[in-house]
Order: sequence, then C-alpha cells, then structure tokens
Amino acid sequence: MTNAATHVYRGTIVHAPHLGALECAEHAYLVTEGGRIAGIFEELPGKYQNAALEDFGDSLIIPSFTDLHLHAPQYIMMGMGFDLPLLDWLNTYTFKEEARFADADFARTVYEALAAELVRRGTTRVCMFSTLHRKATLILMDALERAGITGYVGKVNMDRNSPDCLRETCEESLAETRRWIEECAGRFPHIKPILTPRFTPSCTDALMEGLGALAAEYDLPVQSHLSENDAEIEWVRELHPDCAQYWETYAKFGLWKQGTIMAHCVHSDTRERAAIRTAGVWVAHSPDSNTNLYSGVAPVRKMLNEGLHVALASDVAGGAKLSMLHAAGEAIRASKLRYYYSGKRQDEAYLTVPEAFYLATSAGQQYFGAGPGFRAGDMLHAVVLSDAAFPPSRRLTPAERLERLIYADDPDTIRAVISEGRRLR
Amino acid sequence: MTNAATHVYRGTIVHAPHLGALECAEHAYLVTEGGRIAGIFEELPGKYQNAALEDFGDSLIIPSFTDLHLHAPQYIMMGMGFDLPLLDWLNTYTFKEEARFADADFARTVYEALAAELVRRGTTRVCMFSTLHRKATLILMDALERAGITGYVGKVNMDRNSPDCLRETCEESLAETRRWIEECAGRFPHIKPILTPRFTPSCTDALMEGLGALAAEYDLPVQSHLSENDAEIEWVRELHPDCAQYWETYAKFGLWKQGTIMAHCVHSDTRERAAIRTAGVWVAHSPDSNTNLYSGVAPVRKMLNEGLHVALASDVAGGAKLSMLHAAGEAIRASKLRYYYSGKRQDEAYLTVPEAFYLATSAGQQYFGAGPGFRAGDMLHAVVLSDAAFPPSRRLTPAERLERLIYADDPDTIRAVISEGRRLR
Repeated sequence: MTNAATHVYRGTIVHAPHLGALECAEHAYLVTEGGRIAGIFEELPGKYQNAALEDFGDSLIIPSFTDLHLHAPQYIMMGMGFDLPLLDWLNTYTFKEEARFADADFARTVYEALAAELVRRGTTRVCMFSTLHRKATLILMDALERAGITGYVGKVNMDRNSPDCLRETCEESLAETRRWIEECAGRFPHIKPILTPRFTPSCTDALMEGLGALAAEYDLPVQSHLSENDAEIEWVRELHPDCAQYWETYAKFGLWKQGTIMAHCVHSDTRERAAIRTAGVWVAHSPDSNTNLYSGVAPVRKMLNEGLHVALASDVAGGAKLSMLHAAGEAIRASKLRYYYSGKRQDEAYLTVPEAFYLATSAGQQYFGAGPGFRAGDMLHAVVLSDAAFPPSRRLTPAERLERLIYADDPDTIRAVISEGRRLR
Repeated sequence: MTNAATHVYRGTIVHAPHLGALECAEHAYLVTEGGRIAGIFEELPGKYQNAALEDFGDSLIIPSFTDLHLHAPQYIMMGMGFDLPLLDWLNTYTFKEEARFADADFARTVYEALAAELVRRGTTRVCMFSTLHRKATLILMDALERAGITGYVGKVNMDRNSPDCLRETCEESLAETRRWIEECAGRFPHIKPILTPRFTPSCTDALMEGLGALAAEYDLPVQSHLSENDAEIEWVRELHPDCAQYWETYAKFGLWKQGTIMAHCVHSDTRERAAIRTAGVWVAHSPDSNTNLYSGVAPVRKMLNEGLHVALASDVAGGAKLSMLHAAGEAIRASKLRYYYSGKRQDEAYLTVPEAFYLATSAGQQYFGAGPGFRAGDMLHAVVLSDAAFPPSRRLTPAERLERLIYADDPDTIRAVISEGRRLR
C-alpha cells in the first residue's frame, strides 16, 4: 500500500489538539501521504514498513509556528527604537524605513533574508504587512513562496497622517491595490493577498470604503490594527466621533467580518470583545510588541474564556524577534505580570506553557483552515527541536523538554522544518 | 615604551561610565598593559604603534557582563517548572535537583558545562550560590577558576524547612562552612568565598548567628534573598515576630552590612530600601526570575533615584537563561509593565536601553572594585559583539547597534571574551 509519496518521521511527537493540554508520544511515528498527515502511531503499521523513514532520534517533532501579524519591511529595524512610545516610534523610525521599499532591489535583498530567517526560526505560516509599494509587495510574496512559507501578505493602504514619502492618494491606493490583486491571481500557490488598511488614522473614509468594496468584490480577507495604545485610541475617537468604539471604524466600511485579523486588542473592553467574537474576527496577540512599546498587556485570559479566536504574533518590529519561541515566552511573561497586577484574580490567570504553545501553533493553524495540533488529513507543517546540547538533566517528560526549549529560544535547537509537506530545512 | 604585555584592541567601543549615558568611540583603540586598561584612543598614540593589535573591524567592544545572583546547581533545570509559584517550585523541582550535587562527579560535569556557557554568554564576573555540599562547592570554584571566570561563590547554609536530602544540622553547617573557608584559602586566585544563608526560612537563629560570627572572623561578604514574594515574606514574618521587616532577620545576626548582596527586593518598601542604602547593601535585580515566578517587579527606578546599589542578575534558574543580554531585555520589559501599571507615573519610569546596559555591566563591576565602564587602571573585562549577520540596515549609530544586539540576545553575536585581561574566547 506504500507509495512514493509516503514519508515516516520518527521522534517524540508533541502537539496541542486542545487549549492547555499537550498530547505526547515518545519515539513514535508521524506518517504523511502526499504531504498530508495520515496519523501518529506508537508502533509503525505494517503498510508503512517500506516507506522512507527519517529518524530524528530523541528530538521533539512539533507543529511549526504560525505568526499572525508582522511587518516585513520592519525586519531592517528589528530591536530598535523601543525607548519611544508607539506613535513617536512610528514617526521616528518606522515610516522612514518603510519608504525605502520603493526600491525594488533593496526589497528583494531584505525580503529574501527575511524569508530565510523565518524558515530558520520554524515559522511556516504567516499573515504579513508589506508596505504600500505594489512592486515590493509582489517581491515579498515571491520571496516567501520560493522559501516555502505559506499564508497571506497585504499591500498596505495609507492616504493620510503619514509623511509624503509614505502616502498615497486615495485613488492611487485603490487603483494600485486592484492592480496588485489582479497581478497576484494564480501567481503564488501558497501566498495569498489580504487587504491591509494600515490602521484607521492612516486611511480616509473614502479609502476605507473603497477597500470594503474590494473585499466584497474579490472575497478577500482583511487585516489591520485595533486598540493597541491609549494615545492611538484617543486619536481614532477624534477622527471618528460618529463611532462609539474603534472597531466600528472598520465595521462601518465592511472590513469587520469573518476572518478579519486585528492585531493587538490590548484595550478591547467587554463590548469590543463581544463584537470581535460575534463577527468571527481574529485577535493577533502580540505580547512582546505591546510590552516593548508599553501599550499594556491584552486580556488574553478573558478572550480565551469568552471564546474569541486568539493566536500569537511576533509583530516584528514592535516585537524584537521573529522567533515564535520568544513570542510564546513573552506571552507567558506578560500574562504573569497582568495577573500579578490584577491582584492575582482568577479571570486574569496567567498563560501556562501548554497554552502559550497552543497559541503559537494550533490556534494560528486554524486561521489557515487546518485543525489544531497534528490533525489527520492536514498538510504537514512541523518543526524538529533538539535539546541535545542542553545542560545534563534527569530524564525529563516531553512536556518538560518542550518547556525548556521554549524558554531557551535558541534557533540552533531547530533541526528541521517542514512546510505544506515539504522539507525546507 | 611598549612591552610584551601591551595589547591593542580595535573596534567600536561602547561603555556606560554613568547611568543612562553611553560613551561611544567608533573604530577606536582600547589599550591594555599587563591586562589593565591604559586608555581608549581615537588615534593610536605613537608609543603603542608596535604593540600587538587585534582588529575587530566593525564589531562593538563593550565591558563583559556581571551576574550578581545565580544558582549554579539550577543550571540543570534552567527553563523548567515556571507554571508553579516560588515556594512550590522550590519543593517540586529545586531542592530535588540540588540534592544531586552530593555526587562530586556529577557536580564536576555540570559545573564545567556551566562555566563554559558563562564564557560563551560573555559573563566574566559572578556572585553565585552553590549547594550546601562543601566538596561540590570547591569543584564549582575550581571549574570557574579554570574557565577564567572571576567573582564569589557561596556554599549554601540551610538547617530547617527543607527536605532531609538537602538539610544540615546547625553544627554540621557551621563546621562545614569553616572547613570550606579554610580549604579555599589561597587556592583560587579569582574566585573567593561568600557566606550564603539560603534565605531566612532555611536557617535557624543559631545558624544565622554562627554565620554572622564567621563573617566577622574571616571578614567575608554575605549573599542571600530578600522580599521576593508575598508568601515568602509572610512566612518570614511568622518565623520572626520580633522583626518588623524581613531585612532585620539578617541585620540582627551581623549579616546586613557593607557589600551584602540581597537578591530580588521586589517588595522592599521605603523603609526597607532606606535600610539597604544606609547599610551599603547591594540589590541583585532579577527581573526574569521575578516575572517567571510571578513575584512581581522590583521598584528599580525608585531604587536608582534613592541611590541604592543595584546590579542585574540572571537568577538562573528562576531566570530562564544565563544570558545577561536576556536579563537586560527582561529588565526593560518588566520595568515597562511596572510603569504601565503604575498609570505611567514618573517615579516608576521604565528603564532605557543605556540604563539596562549600565545595570548589566558598570553597576556590577563596581561590586568587584572596578570603576563603571572601561576605567583606566582596571583589569580589562570585555566582550566583542558582532552584528554582521543582522538584516541589512541603514548606517546605525553605535547606540542603535547596541540596542539591536541586546534585543537579539544571540550568543552567536559574541565573538570574543576577555576576563581579567585574559582572552577566554
């Protein structure tokens, strides 16, 4: 029954089919057929005995990481400017750097390096902001596609409140977006377009309305930012006195819908969270960024209790690292301090290691239509982690080993990366 | 005038002679004579023209890191058990692991690995807890000495409230400590003994009294823990109804004195902080540990404003990594969340990058008798950091480059390590 497209991977398999619970199988077999997961087996079934087997020994095999929000151009300013708050940081660093992506050659160099580092860090599924430049956006999509990354990329729209070097007219913005959508069609098997108004302060009503129309016309998903920072929220309130809350500035233009991704939601209150849940909007939780730019800590425990879709994001370069191991560690740390400062209230309980792992893998996978954990029938996205170089220890459980690997956040522990059934590394 | 012991190091020199301010010299020369810093020069003085020169090109040359508090045996459990709070974590993980250091061969293996990783991470000055085992403590001192690390190591004292496998009688503890002090004498040129009552709950009054007497008899410094966690503080209050505050449980036995290091001080209020300042006690600020074990965030800004001695510490394995780059990043992150949760009060202002850098280098250096930054006359302790593998960027200032290197927290950026004038790596 074996065919050429069957692969068997052997190792200690750890995944999180449910929030807060790990499933572990030591020295077990993960089988794929045509890149799709056939199953996980303690003993290898007879029909797979002759299939190609890759034995990863004592290493852990886990789902690869998903990153639901990051800014590709900000890769060149990763880890810089964090002594400034969000809006000053945007004006002092970010906009100037993003303007450089008018240069296609520069974009190619940066985006190829970014794609390579994503693979090195074990991230195989992304939702990414480009810049407003159509050409550079296509170059980014091409670089990701060639590197084996999958997911969504958005040409950014911004026609107000930004420097001349990084602002379109409304007409240009919509025309370029339409042209970009057309140019994407059929071109990138694994990288799809997503509409990307930068955030409300950057987009006139006319632009928002046009983007809402494009979303409907092409049936495209949407990503943007929501309720990140007090000064930003106040600004949105001034810009939109007609809207009671920030989210409504998206909703009134048809951009608030099933599958819309909103980064941050740090200050989303009960009402805004209810609007998120009801619409089927996804929260891209970016704890490192929210700490670095002292925006605060999102109420993740409440979001999870209320049944919102929440997945982890690096938010490079508000986040300092592409590593989703780092993002998971910072999600736990930020949640512990939120818990601490709430007076250790139960509805603010900190994230456990299995929960952060779920948010960095299973949660995001579902945005891309896969199941949580390693689900039979899904294309395999996996990372192989080795702790062989760690300090000597007693015999550890797979859960303890995963915890150590998360906190170590060491790219050298990533031995192999598989995306959409294809071995990238 | 050049002699064989003169060395010239060329690179971009960055150090922090004052809290909050960097001094930078691009493509400059750092000269040592007999391992001591002779000076930093934009142009190499004629008298050094024939000295051995090592050109580190575009790399940064910064002071090496100091780690004012960590637990050597906990290296084997780094990054584990953080879903538990402090006292449960101690009982579930820590004490069991520490008991294994009764085995001298095991201790040798672990401590050699630890010393090698400290060097790899650029830490050359430490104040470290061993376990209660005298032999393993000597093995640790020997391993550090051989690796080129400098500083203090303490045999831990504990005669109550710990499992049988990790508890001495008071008499044993004092006798073993005296024997250890005698055995250290003249044996390790760069690693000195420091008295180390684990913390008040682990030590009877008789033991504390005996240690106070030893501190006076041998003129030894002291290290311990203070006001880390609410449950711990409450426990100390129950154990010492005679003491108004935790610090007094050390003070009444002669252990609270100039040069005493107290780890944490998360909950030290105005009165306790005044006692710290008045006595000349040092605070080992351990932000990663305090977050991981949700103890809270120490009031570092207040401590600095009040003129306390504060230096950074990894507190492995409450801290998840030996890296002082990580400790610096987490110090900033924790301070930002404390700032945020204070309602952004000025007296809780977050740590800037230059401040965290000062706390990870200059501050701790002064504990070891050196000046802040690269001070002429001090033995050279330095690290060479390369950002050559970072994403392409515009031309950055040395301060921006340092910020990126801190946030990247990547051991591969550490190209060379010099301790006490000796090249270790």
